[in-house]
Amino acid sequence: MIILKLGGSIITDKAAKEPTVNHNHLNRIAREIKNSNTSDLIIVHGAGSYGHPFAKEYSIGKPFSSDEDFQKKRMGFAITQSWVKKLNSIVCDALRKHGVPAISIQPSSFITTENKRINKADISIVDSYLKKGFVPVIYGDVVLDEDPSIQMAVVSGDQIISYLAKNLLPERVILGTDVDGVFNKNPKLNKDPRIIETLSSLQELDSVDSTTTVDVTGGMIGKLEELLKLAQLGIESEIINAGCNNLIEEALKGKKVPGTVIKK
Amino acid sequence: MIILKLGGSIITDKAAKEPTVNHNHLNRIAREIKNSNTSDLIIVHGAGSYGHPFAKEYSIGKPFSSDEDFQKKRMGFAITQSWVKKLNSIVCDALRKHGVPAISIQPSSFITTENKRINKADISIVDSYLKKGFVPVIYGDVVLDEDPSIQMAVVSGDQIISYLAKNLLPERVILGTDVDGVFNKNPKLNKDPRIIETLSSLQELDSVDSTTTVDVTGGMIGKLEELLKLAQLGIESEIINAGCNNLIEEALKGKKVPGTVIKK
Repeated sequence: MIILKLGGSIITDKAAKEPTVNHNHLNRIAREIKNSNTSDLIIVHGAGSYGHPFAKEYSIGKPFSSDEDFQKKRMGFAITQSWVKKLNSIVCDALRKHGVPAISIQPSSFITTENKRINKADISIVDSYLKKGFVPVIYGDVVLDEDPSIQMAVVSGDQIISYLAKNLLPERVILGTDVDGVFNKNPKLNKDPRIIETLSSLQELDSVDSTTTVDVTGGMIGKLEELLKLAQLGIESEIINAGCNNLIEEALKGKKVPGTVIKK
Repeated sequence: MIILKLGGSIITDKAAKEPTVNHNHLNRIAREIKNSNTSDLIIVHGAGSYGHPFAKEYSIGKPFSSDEDFQKKRMGFAITQSWVKKLNSIVCDALRKHGVPAISIQPSSFITTENKRINKADISIVDSYLKKGFVPVIYGDVVLDEDPSIQMAVVSGDQIISYLAKNLLPERVILGTDVDGVFNKNPKLNKDPRIIETLSSLQELDSVDSTTTVDVTGGMIGKLEELLKLAQLGIESEIINAGCNNLIEEALKGKKVPGTVIKK
């Protein structure tokens, strides 16, 4: 089994003010996935400009101060859920157009968190879809949280990957992002950045400010924290640039491609 | 708690060749729901032209004859799931536009059937959304079936209502349809049809051909079979015409409106 992440910054224009799909990337990646002929594949995608602006505007995951604030946040939750669901429809449709039997899985229908960490999620259905040859497509979403002070939370694609991986023990986890891998320091702010080929701990970074984008789900650091926990369980993952032609396809086919491997 | 069904033949143009929403009905009904000021409300909607044509084309729920047939059906399942999900987005957006904090619940993410009847569905999340004041919006969908000869099935909005009602014991179940209630005989084929005010068994019908439309989920007879089972449990339901102005609103407010009451 392979779990493949499609980053929100690749399949959407993350800097856009309105939810905007990057159809070029999405269609190319859908074709690469089809061409790789991968069986036993789960796709997890981020929300990009379909989720982060709304989750941020309504401070989903932050405590509310009054009944009025709660009601506003509740409507913001519904709005965010609606947009990320629309993105998921677009992703599934693009995959299906290329012949991939993509099936949508909506986290907010069956996952809850406690203090922003998944505490309940019956993922046996993901396994059932896999066994029938579907490609389940699950995504970063808003979910109910059992902590009474927040009640609602964002569950990132990366946290979902981590949860799925711990429970389904995939052979490989591939993260298609908008960067060439993990840099030792932020390439936009520093000279001579270099890609770290293998990472086992955050201490190996010269600076934790090593991502080009920061989002409500924690950016690259949030991603690495999830992946390092997996590494501790013996599940290796790799971060590659999904913006470069053929990297997703080659990685799915098991070829060594440029990027960063996270392992114990 | 009230469970309200919005029939696929009301919110869509069921006879259309392409998936077509009836925005006039949908927007009016969304406004009526808002105006009724109902708390503790679950909405279940049908698929209409967003679901039935696809479920029928791919014979979802019928045995498959070969690997090739299975693969075709699998893609049909994914296509059907995608369209009914789009309708659900449109319904939730219309409700939200009128100020109803609608939250989508996707059956195929957590419900499975055995020989086309729901055998597994953790609906505690529906209750959790209700408790926070959301209006969960759940819908007729395709789901995995544990019977190896069919593997996939259609779960109708009516079956979902039945399942929810048995488990959540609502005070009322209201079905908004495209007819004035249950006729003693098909009003399109017979003279002098009359609305049955109270129904306790199918034997009270002069003819079982008492609906204007027949669909993959069994039409009016399928609906009545579900509701009669509820009646046996002491849960009364009413079938009203959601195409008539204000009936949904008045029914939600607890007023007596024209239609058929199904009870023991």
